[in-house]
Amino acid sequence: MGTKNSILLGTLGKYSDRFHTYQPEKSFSERLDIAKSIPRTDGVEPVYPQDLGHEGQNIEILKQSGHDVSAINVNLKGEDLFRAGSFTNPDSSIRKKSIDYMKKAIDISTEFDANMISVCPLIDGSDHPFHVDHMKQWHWAIEAFQEVANYNADVKISIEYKAYEVRNRIILPSMGKTLHFCDRVGSENIGVTMDLGHSLMEQESPTAEMAAAHDAGRLFYIHFNDNNRQADWDMPVGSVNLWETLEAIHFMDKIGYDGWIAYDVFTRAGTGSMAISHTFETMEDLRSLIAKIGDEKIQELRESGDSAYVSKELIKHLL
Amino acid sequence: MGTKNSILLGTLGKYSDRFHTYQPEKSFSERLDIAKSIPRTDGVEPVYPQDLGHEGQNIEILKQSGHDVSAINVNLKGEDLFRAGSFTNPDSSIRKKSIDYMKKAIDISTEFDANMISVCPLIDGSDHPFHVDHMKQWHWAIEAFQEVANYNADVKISIEYKAYEVRNRIILPSMGKTLHFCDRVGSENIGVTMDLGHSLMEQESPTAEMAAAHDAGRLFYIHFNDNNRQADWDMPVGSVNLWETLEAIHFMDKIGYDGWIAYDVFTRAGTGSMAISHTFETMEDLRSLIAKIGDEKIQELRESGDSAYVSKELIKHLL
Amino acid sequence: MGTKNSILLGTLGKYSDRFHTYQPEKSFSERLDIAKSIPRTDGVEPVYPQDLGHEGQNIEILKQSGHDVSAINVNLKGEDLFRAGSFTNPDSSIRKKSIDYMKKAIDISTEFDANMISVCPLIDGSDHPFHVDHMKQWHWAIEAFQEVANYNADVKISIEYKAYEVRNRIILPSMGKTLHFCDRVGSENIGVTMDLGHSLMEQESPTAEMAAAHDAGRLFYIHFNDNNRQADWDMPVGSVNLWETLEAIHFMDKIGYDGWIAYDVFTRAGTGSMAISHTFETMEDLRSLIAKIGDEKIQELRESGDSAYVSKELIKHLL
Amino acid sequence: MGTKNSILLGTLGKYSDRFHTYQPEKSFSERLDIAKSIPRTDGVEPVYPQDLGHEGQNIEILKQSGHDVSAINVNLKGEDLFRAGSFTNPDSSIRKKSIDYMKKAIDISTEFDANMISVCPLIDGSDHPFHVDHMKQWHWAIEAFQEVANYNADVKISIEYKAYEVRNRIILPSMGKTLHFCDRVGSENIGVTMDLGHSLMEQESPTAEMAAAHDAGRLFYIHFNDNNRQADWDMPVGSVNLWETLEAIHFMDKIGYDGWIAYDVFTRAGTGSMAISHTFETMEDLRSLIAKIGDEKIQELRESGDSAYVSKELIKHLL
Repeated sequence: MGTKNSILLGTLGKYSDRFHTYQPEKSFSERLDIAKSIPRTDGVEPVYPQDLGHEGQNIEILKQSGHDVSAINVNLKGEDLFRAGSFTNPDSSIRKKSIDYMKKAIDISTEFDANMISVCPLIDGSDHPFHVDHMKQWHWAIEAFQEVANYNADVKISIEYKAYEVRNRIILPSMGKTLHFCDRVGSENIGVTMDLGHSLMEQESPTAEMAAAHDAGRLFYIHFNDNNRQADWDMPVGSVNLWETLEAIHFMDKIGYDGWIAYDVFTRAGTGSMAISHTFETMEDLRSLIAKIGDEKIQELRESGDSAYVSKELIKHLL
Repeated sequence: MGTKNSILLGTLGKYSDRFHTYQPEKSFSERLDIAKSIPRTDGVEPVYPQDLGHEGQNIEILKQSGHDVSAINVNLKGEDLFRAGSFTNPDSSIRKKSIDYMKKAIDISTEFDANMISVCPLIDGSDHPFHVDHMKQWHWAIEAFQEVANYNADVKISIEYKAYEVRNRIILPSMGKTLHFCDRVGSENIGVTMDLGHSLMEQESPTAEMAAAHDAGRLFYIHFNDNNRQADWDMPVGSVNLWETLEAIHFMDKIGYDGWIAYDVFTRAGTGSMAISHTFETMEDLRSLIAKIGDEKIQELRESGDSAYVSKELIKHLL
Repeated sequence: MGTKNSILLGTLGKYSDRFHTYQPEKSFSERLDIAKSIPRTDGVEPVYPQDLGHEGQNIEILKQSGHDVSAINVNLKGEDLFRAGSFTNPDSSIRKKSIDYMKKAIDISTEFDANMISVCPLIDGSDHPFHVDHMKQWHWAIEAFQEVANYNADVKISIEYKAYEVRNRIILPSMGKTLHFCDRVGSENIGVTMDLGHSLMEQESPTAEMAAAHDAGRLFYIHFNDNNRQADWDMPVGSVNLWETLEAIHFMDKIGYDGWIAYDVFTRAGTGSMAISHTFETMEDLRSLIAKIGDEKIQELRESGDSAYVSKELIKHLL
Repeated sequence: MGTKNSILLGTLGKYSDRFHTYQPEKSFSERLDIAKSIPRTDGVEPVYPQDLGHEGQNIEILKQSGHDVSAINVNLKGEDLFRAGSFTNPDSSIRKKSIDYMKKAIDISTEFDANMISVCPLIDGSDHPFHVDHMKQWHWAIEAFQEVANYNADVKISIEYKAYEVRNRIILPSMGKTLHFCDRVGSENIGVTMDLGHSLMEQESPTAEMAAAHDAGRLFYIHFNDNNRQADWDMPVGSVNLWETLEAIHFMDKIGYDGWIAYDVFTRAGTGSMAISHTFETMEDLRSLIAKIGDEKIQELRESGDSAYVSKELIKHLL
């Protein structure tokens, strides 16, 4: 329960998909101000370079906001130079650029005592057979993160895996692949941002994957949201997969995870600010539901291994 | 709330998948006896010909059991003759056979005042491109059901659609396709068995589909169970998709559905009898959860159309 | 082989997904000019109101281009007023607006002797349980299309179904549901735009669905593209599902479909113009592959129903 | 091209799914004899204990058949004792049993100079939230394979990962998770059986995953088959995903994989023997298709990174 709420600053700004724009653009300052007004906010996750500026021009704005920073999010997919990939781009100068972005974000993260960057590599991977040279991509990826991890051993490099979108198949699509990737990179300061929605869309059991990440000492950061396992809809926490969400929170609290949680929740109605506010409240309510079921009961249910009994009891405890 | 609980008699017998057998074989009589012992049981759904015998030899056993019958389930996939399809088999004599099975089941259903057969066509469809002649299959299917529907206008022919398994793609995979099929057959006594699990594995919104079926006057019968949308796991009701299940029950009760509900719940631990017993109890508890949220609140939530608000409120009402 | 190639004019302009912009904006005139330069182009599919203007201000530009028009595409999702739905919007004035859009597009289509509008309802449906009133949505949808279909019996109203995106679950997600919807609307001039990619992402057998649509007299229009069945990637024809694509083309040619085909192919590398040009060429090559296999052989394969034999023979015929 | 064809002996025997039996039971001897009669057969993969007997009673039969052995397949899911799991069973005596099975299979594998066992853990994992203690499962799994890997360092332990079926979510569902698991076990003689069908149903890019496994020195064994990415249909190679299959074979040959390939191809029509025979022939034809496209062309296509160009060229080279 010692977790801290961070706001992904993107969730307070423009939200567009391929066909519609739901939320209006807001400046960095505006979003920082909105974040101030949302109860239960402990910090924010800003984006490099979009929020902070390539040269860190907006660092001062962030400092003056007084917000704590959970991590610096490095965007390696939005700009045109990354069209054919970032750290797996066939062009070595772009690969170098993506490494430079991460180093710059590392430096910034130390200025805020966040000491963590979070990277979600969306544009590295492939779209269909015979599209790329997978072996080269794999080697380029390992080399890039070895350089980044060695740059500052005191800063955590947290990779937010995702199965697809932008690429049809991203190079680090699952927890397992990302943990193995960390093993290959070989540094202690490289780990994983577990995004519950990404885990669900990859058909994972989020809790089983969190267990492996925790066991490997690489569970660095957590993002919560929900979806129907078909796409990364970034829906409100618990709106679809209530049991999966409860199991994940229960596990997270049991292992004593006391780091940051950020929330990738976008909203097609209402405002981003209300969506985040509701989400923070919901997280408390979800923990109350877990308390209602009770830890001993949960242990008893898992020991029974009897699906019909487990379901009946879980539902009864919500009455 | 006027719905009646029926037991799919198969759920009390042997349960095997491709790799393991979880539940032991039980005779027809044994299963009828077990059904007697389960509280809240209003009737049973026996299988033709496996339970009742090709010539109806076991009808007497069923009669003597005193059980009410919700519908006769016609099995058009288990026997070797259906290896290449039933009513779409390229061999016209097999197509005729499948029609005869349905007619025989119609006759039996009248003996129990069930006046309904339920058919789940699993082995008709195709496994990959260039495997079958889709146009011929479609015409054969329409012809078969026209003959069956015309055989006895007082008996309902209820089709339980399913997307895949046995065939990789079944000819009637979705509610929409099945309703259109009914339109093409053109009789009033042909309709749909909505199996919640089949709907979920086809990525449908079960309630949206039930609404269309009800609007067409073709929602004849309902099966409840759950799965994680990847396969037809036949899991306990509400064990995965709690909100989808609650929405479906809420809708079903609002339109005043007062027919039979049967439960396709198989269990890998414990006994089939306990699984059914727990399921019946759970259905009551799920209705209590809906009552806890309240009909007015549900209407308000839907009118808001605001996902973050809806989720927050739903979860809060479970506290 | 009597089919005609149309260019969805959007494919020549800006292409952005949630995270990246791959292709630059181009004006309506520019896109019409580019279309002129692409070999094998028989016509175009412009978008109302984005291309043509709300009042049809740009109709003249299109006329002067000399292009034939396959259909007017009505966009009922992009503008802010449709945020909560178009013909199923809870606000009746928005529902009326969406009907007006379609009527206006009908009028324009007659000016070009296209006599067809194509509508892809992306923003009507729901995002999660308890989000909308499904029964109301269904009734509103039927009423809207009854009014539109009756507006001008000489113009075809062709619905391009899609399972998800923008809504997590769209109201007309599949061929089956759309054909049943047409049955409920009840007019002869309402039918279906079969988008191969949409069919694939819904896990359909595209050919089986085309067969049903053709049998119902409602196969009005076809869009080709491909994806890996996870999302609507709008990929080059045949880049993933070669056999499904070949089966669909073979079927289309066998039933003598001689209408328009448009191509929803977006590209993340190269130019939109080259992507379309390559696609037109590929369609010819795919037909050559079918000819290489041969119609008699295809018939023999389907009659065998033997998957191992079918696969072996198909592959051998590509040698 | 130096790969060797092995027959999974199960594919020549009984084939049943939940609803139908397609192929008849055949004795171990019968299947060994059939294997003899299939052209291009280099060896077989027998199952412990089902084929070989718990005490290895049937080892002599296999020896007398004269077949080479690719690997001993250890079945840790079929018998009733494994109902609640094998190496993750809450009952420590069952966990020990599963370890003993693997050790016994290791011993047998040395008798045939196969020096490899292949294990597909289907019944270890979970079915829904709150069903098991994921952390305990993870630790039990690591402990079990550490003991097995240390038992005989000269024998390879090859894990065939699979996402689901029997469990709704298996503990080693993907290549990435399995490679990370091998990292945690920490021995050099533990690696992966890449089953192309399992990779496809998990939505992986099979070639990208093979690249990572090869890079880690853990690509021990390969199984080929196909499916439509929805379930493990065990279909003929190339019957659905032609391009994915070609890319995988191309990669396999480029890295000089010269080990065994076995084929998990079951057939619903015709005989198992013909299915295998056709499959062996098809593998040669697929390599001819790759040769027709040409290695230089493939390299050029991947370097272009241009999906429309890649697709056009690939298809043109099949003409």
